[in-house]
Amino acid sequence: MSNKNKDKILKSELRQDLVTGKWVVISPKRKKRPHTSFREAQYKPLDQGECIFCDPAGSGQEKDVLIYGEGKDWRVRVFPNKYPAFQKGTDLQKKLSGPYFAQRAIGFHEVLVTRDHLKSLANLSREEVSEVLGAYQERYIKLMNKKFIDYVSIFHNHGKSAGASVVHPHSQILAIPVVSSEIRDELSGSEDYFVKNKECVFCRMVSEELTVKKRVVYQNDSFVAFCPFASRMGYEVWVMPKIHEPYFERLSKKERLKAAEALKTTLFRLYKLLDNPDYNFYLHTSPCDGKIYDHYHWHLEILPKFSTWAGFELGTGVEINTVVPEAAAEELRKIS
Amino acid sequence: MSNKNKDKILKSELRQDLVTGKWVVISPKRKKRPHTSFREAQYKPLDQGECIFCDPAGSGQEKDVLIYGEGKDWRVRVFPNKYPAFQKGTDLQKKLSGPYFAQRAIGFHEVLVTRDHLKSLANLSREEVSEVLGAYQERYIKLMNKKFIDYVSIFHNHGKSAGASVVHPHSQILAIPVVSSEIRDELSGSEDYFVKNKECVFCRMVSEELTVKKRVVYQNDSFVAFCPFASRMGYEVWVMPKIHEPYFERLSKKERLKAAEALKTTLFRLYKLLDNPDYNFYLHTSPCDGKIYDHYHWHLEILPKFSTWAGFELGTGVEINTVVPEAAAEELRKIS
Repeated sequence: MSNKNKDKILKSELRQDLVTGKWVVISPKRKKRPHTSFREAQYKPLDQGECIFCDPAGSGQEKDVLIYGEGKDWRVRVFPNKYPAFQKGTDLQKKLSGPYFAQRAIGFHEVLVTRDHLKSLANLSREEVSEVLGAYQERYIKLMNKKFIDYVSIFHNHGKSAGASVVHPHSQILAIPVVSSEIRDELSGSEDYFVKNKECVFCRMVSEELTVKKRVVYQNDSFVAFCPFASRMGYEVWVMPKIHEPYFERLSKKERLKAAEALKTTLFRLYKLLDNPDYNFYLHTSPCDGKIYDHYHWHLEILPKFSTWAGFELGTGVEINTVVPEAAAEELRKIS
Repeated sequence: MSNKNKDKILKSELRQDLVTGKWVVISPKRKKRPHTSFREAQYKPLDQGECIFCDPAGSGQEKDVLIYGEGKDWRVRVFPNKYPAFQKGTDLQKKLSGPYFAQRAIGFHEVLVTRDHLKSLANLSREEVSEVLGAYQERYIKLMNKKFIDYVSIFHNHGKSAGASVVHPHSQILAIPVVSSEIRDELSGSEDYFVKNKECVFCRMVSEELTVKKRVVYQNDSFVAFCPFASRMGYEVWVMPKIHEPYFERLSKKERLKAAEALKTTLFRLYKLLDNPDYNFYLHTSPCDGKIYDHYHWHLEILPKFSTWAGFELGTGVEINTVVPEAAAEELRKIS
C-alpha cells in the first residue's frame, strides 16, 4: 500500500454514489475490531456424486432451454429453476388489499450451469467465460421480448455466504414484470446527470478512472474493471464498457470476448488475493419495458461477501466498508 | 395455518411497499428448495469469562456516557464504540474528487449493553426493556442536538448471521451527518401519501391492520406489532405507535412501557417459535436536521435473519421472501 493510501485509512470517510446519491462509509479502522465471541464456522461442499447440477436432467431438473455442446460433451446449459420465484402466467391479477397493492409474480426464473463441478468462472478460460456471457445474452434476448417482462436480472452467487445453495457453479436469470425502485434510482440518477452535464455519468466515471488510474484493477481495449469510489463492500469491482452502450443485449461477439477477459481476470485476481472469496456479481442494464434509456450504460457489479449488512445498513441503507477502494485496487492490480 | 393462507402459498406474489414503492416477492414455494450442497455451519458462543461487554471498563472499553444502576449493580450502560464508523470532529471537509463527492464521517458511534451475558431482550422483563428504550431515548436526545448531526440510527443485532460480532446482548447508536437516501425514500413516500390522501400513511396502515387483523402479532392500548404486507423477510414484524407520532424522542415514560411490552412480546414469540433466531431490529424516526417531518410516524422494524440477500436482491433491490406474512402472523399470535 502506498503512503498516501496508508494516510487515508486513519479516518472514516462518507462517500456518495455519483449515480444514485447513496452514501457509504469507508471505515478502515473498524477492520481491526475483534470478533472474539464466536468460533469460526466451518462447512464443506458435498461431493460431486451428490450434485444436482452435474447431471441436471438425470437429477430431475426441467428440460434445457439452451445447451452448448452435445450429450455428455455439454459445456453450458440453461434450464428453468425448479423452485422459481417468478413463474409463467397469463394474467398479472393486479389487486388492492385495503391500501396495499399486489400482483402475481409472473416471469421466468432460469439456472445456467457450466460443466465443471468445482471450476468457477475465475478459473475458466477467457473463451469459456465468453460462452457464458453469450448464453446470458441469448437468454436475455429471448426473455426480454416475452409478454409482461419489463426487466431481466442476471446474476451469479458464489459460495454459501453469498447465498449460493448449491456449490456447483451456476448463474441465475430472472425475467420480471416490474422495474424495481433501485433500478429506477440508477436510471433517474443517470438521466438527471445527463440532462445537467450533457454527458453519460458512467462515461464520466470511466474517463475519471482511466485518468486517475488508482482505482483501476484491469483494462483492455474495450472494458475497464475498477473499484468504485463509493464501494459498498471491500474489493467491490465494476466491469464497464469503455464506450457508451445502454443495452447489454447489443454486445458483439468480439466485444463479448473483451468483456469475458475483464470479468475473468477480475474474478481470478479476487480468487488469488482473497483465497477464493464468496461473492455475488450481477448485470445492470436498461429495462426492456419498451422505453428508451439511451442515457444509461450497462455494466457488471462484483460484490465480494465479507461482512453482513446488519442493523445500521438495513435501517439506513448506508453501508460501512472497511477497505479503502484505492488500496483494494492497488492490491488487485499486483496479482498476475 | 388457515385454508385461505394455504391457498395463497401456491403462487408467488409481487407486493409493493406502500411507503417507498419497493417491491418484494412472496414466494413460499421456494422455501422447499433443497440446500443440499453445504453441510450445516456450527458455531459456539465464547464463555462469559472472555466477554468484553460483561465488564466493559475492565476490558478496556471507553468511559460510559450513560449508566443505570451503580457499581457492580449496573443494569444498562452506554459507552463509545472502540472501533467507530463515525467519529467526533470539527470540520466536515467536504471535497470533490473529480466528479465524486466525499466528506469526513463525523458523528458518534456508541454501544449499549444490558447486564446479563446471555439473556437477550426477548427474555428480559417489560420493565427492563423499557429501561433500554429509555436509554435509547436519553442518548438520542443528547446526540440529536450535537453539531453536524442530521440523523440518529439506533439498532440491535442479535446473532452472528445478523452481524453481531460479540455475543453479549448489545445495541448500537450511530449519530450521523447525513440523511440517507433510503430514509429520504420513506420520508418522501410518506409525504406524497399525506399530500394526496390528507392522512399519514402509517396511520392508514395501523387502521388497516387493526381492521383486517390477519397480520397482527400483538397489540396493547398504545402499540401494535404486525407483519408488514410487503414483508422482505419471513417473520418480519413492525412495532408502531397506534397514535400518530413523528418523533421517537417525545415518547412518554408511560408509553415507553407500552412500547417495551410490544417489543418484548414480539421478540419473545420469535424466540419461542423460531428457536432463538438471529435478527436485527432498528428504529425509524424523523431526522434531526432541523426540518419538520410532521407527516412521518416513528416505528421499530424487526428483521429475522433466515436468508442471505444474494445477486437478485443486490442487483435489483427486490427481496424474495418465502414466508407469507399472514401465515407468519398467525403462527406468532399463537405463542403465549
